[in-house]
Amino acid sequence: MDYAAEQQLLVSRVEAGIDLLLPAPTEPSARIHEAMRYAMQSGGKRLRPVLVLAAARLLETGRSCDPVAAAVAVECVHAYSLVHDDLPCMDNDDLRRGRPTAHRAFDEATALLAGDALLTRAFGIIAESYRANPTLATALVGELAGAAGSRRLVGGQMEDLLAEKGSGATPEGLRFIHLNKTAAMIEASLAMGGLCAGAAGAEVETLREAGRELGLAFQIVDDILDATSDTATLGKTAGKDARAGKTTYVSVHGIDEARRIARERSGSAVEALRRLPGDTGFLASLAESLIGRSH
Amino acid sequence: MDYAAEQQLLVSRVEAGIDLLLPAPTEPSARIHEAMRYAMQSGGKRLRPVLVLAAARLLETGRSCDPVAAAVAVECVHAYSLVHDDLPCMDNDDLRRGRPTAHRAFDEATALLAGDALLTRAFGIIAESYRANPTLATALVGELAGAAGSRRLVGGQMEDLLAEKGSGATPEGLRFIHLNKTAAMIEASLAMGGLCAGAAGAEVETLREAGRELGLAFQIVDDILDATSDTATLGKTAGKDARAGKTTYVSVHGIDEARRIARERSGSAVEALRRLPGDTGFLASLAESLIGRSH
Repeated sequence: MDYAAEQQLLVSRVEAGIDLLLPAPTEPSARIHEAMRYAMQSGGKRLRPVLVLAAARLLETGRSCDPVAAAVAVECVHAYSLVHDDLPCMDNDDLRRGRPTAHRAFDEATALLAGDALLTRAFGIIAESYRANPTLATALVGELAGAAGSRRLVGGQMEDLLAEKGSGATPEGLRFIHLNKTAAMIEASLAMGGLCAGAAGAEVETLREAGRELGLAFQIVDDILDATSDTATLGKTAGKDARAGKTTYVSVHGIDEARRIARERSGSAVEALRRLPGDTGFLASLAESLIGRSH
Repeated sequence: MDYAAEQQLLVSRVEAGIDLLLPAPTEPSARIHEAMRYAMQSGGKRLRPVLVLAAARLLETGRSCDPVAAAVAVECVHAYSLVHDDLPCMDNDDLRRGRPTAHRAFDEATALLAGDALLTRAFGIIAESYRANPTLATALVGELAGAAGSRRLVGGQMEDLLAEKGSGATPEGLRFIHLNKTAAMIEASLAMGGLCAGAAGAEVETLREAGRELGLAFQIVDDILDATSDTATLGKTAGKDARAGKTTYVSVHGIDEARRIARERSGSAVEALRRLPGDTGFLASLAESLIGRSH
């Protein structure tokens, strides 16, 4: 199967899982469930949950558990973080994936609560879906809470905001932000896939390493796209970084050097993955596609 | 030991646990960790975590695990819900427990992120602290995510908001709001204590029943206090319900009947608890004190 077909297959497994694992839009309170589903519909690449499934397949063992619920949990956390990030008190954005952001489609309070509910549901999905394997469930909760918590994702967002309001980030500050705001969840996605596969600790560590490199590459490309693309192509507001005078890989290194670093990071990710047993073809293509993406 | 001394002892165990289980305020990002700790400092009654500890003691068995981490996790979720509830797009409140609300002491974005981080940390604390007993950890995560999720706590907040913006709640709507916005977390607190004690499923069910009654009583008293007390005594803005034309137990039933119903609910809670083996003295006093409280 070629990369695009394989990717589409994994995306459709994720989307079936989302539909199954989120409360029905008719359940009370209907409005919160509509808003949760709105935030989870994207037509997007489903990068993080696809990484969960791909890592689980890479390291498949006789002890493997179905990774779809873990993948959906990761996507819930990602969707919550975007909904809250778009709120007026944060990035104040009207557009996300080419559609009105959740607080524009509903209202601020509903968007706030839908984000809260998605974050909560992520952990509920893990506890319900892996109840028969509580050691795995506990490891997945720990991994996800670590990546999404104040030491990583939320801490990265906090520092990003402070840098924006202040005099911009130092190069070390920028690394802290990228490592935590972006790479943490990509690391966790690969690690959670490995955990579902029943992989050994050292293998999960290698997945985390690959995730960190891939996450850094992803964020650099995000910075490049913000500087070079347009709002219609991105499906979200372009050019925001420059307007905000934000420190990014582009403002520090320039476009060409940023592109080179992104390619280097992505190469390191693939190298790390190749140290693992299974067939890394799909993940290598995915890393390549992240570098070449236009949105 | 008398009730007040016993209660103080449980509160001090909870507060030691909070200090231990939240990231240090010096860890980066320092600002998010300061805001998380600010939101968790209260001088409050610590009702929910005290219920976790009391239920765990009531049903203590040879298989009991230390319930302090579960109690802290419950308090993290409660604190997050208050921080988000106080935000301008929700209740827009400046005062909580006699101090500036988190978004007044910091700013809106920091308060939003601190709430997110506290909710996430709740699940991280459970996964870390009960790693050696993953069946318990998984049950606790499931219980907490269920109570805090869109079908309960968040769903109740959503319907509360809709009722406020619309033409007020029907009596059934009011019951949905109280059952979910308030009672869910009180049920979960008692149930999680029981789970930590290694209690049987039927006992946990009885704890949930007691928690539901206690939670309804607690919310009715909240409505009464909002109507009859003043801001200085409450430590939060008084008289908001009437000003907002909100449907409450007081507006539907009048003060005296609301008082009677609260007492009845609290009595049912104590009756349910008395069906359980251990000494219910402390929990009965606690139920009594909730009815008689002035803030």
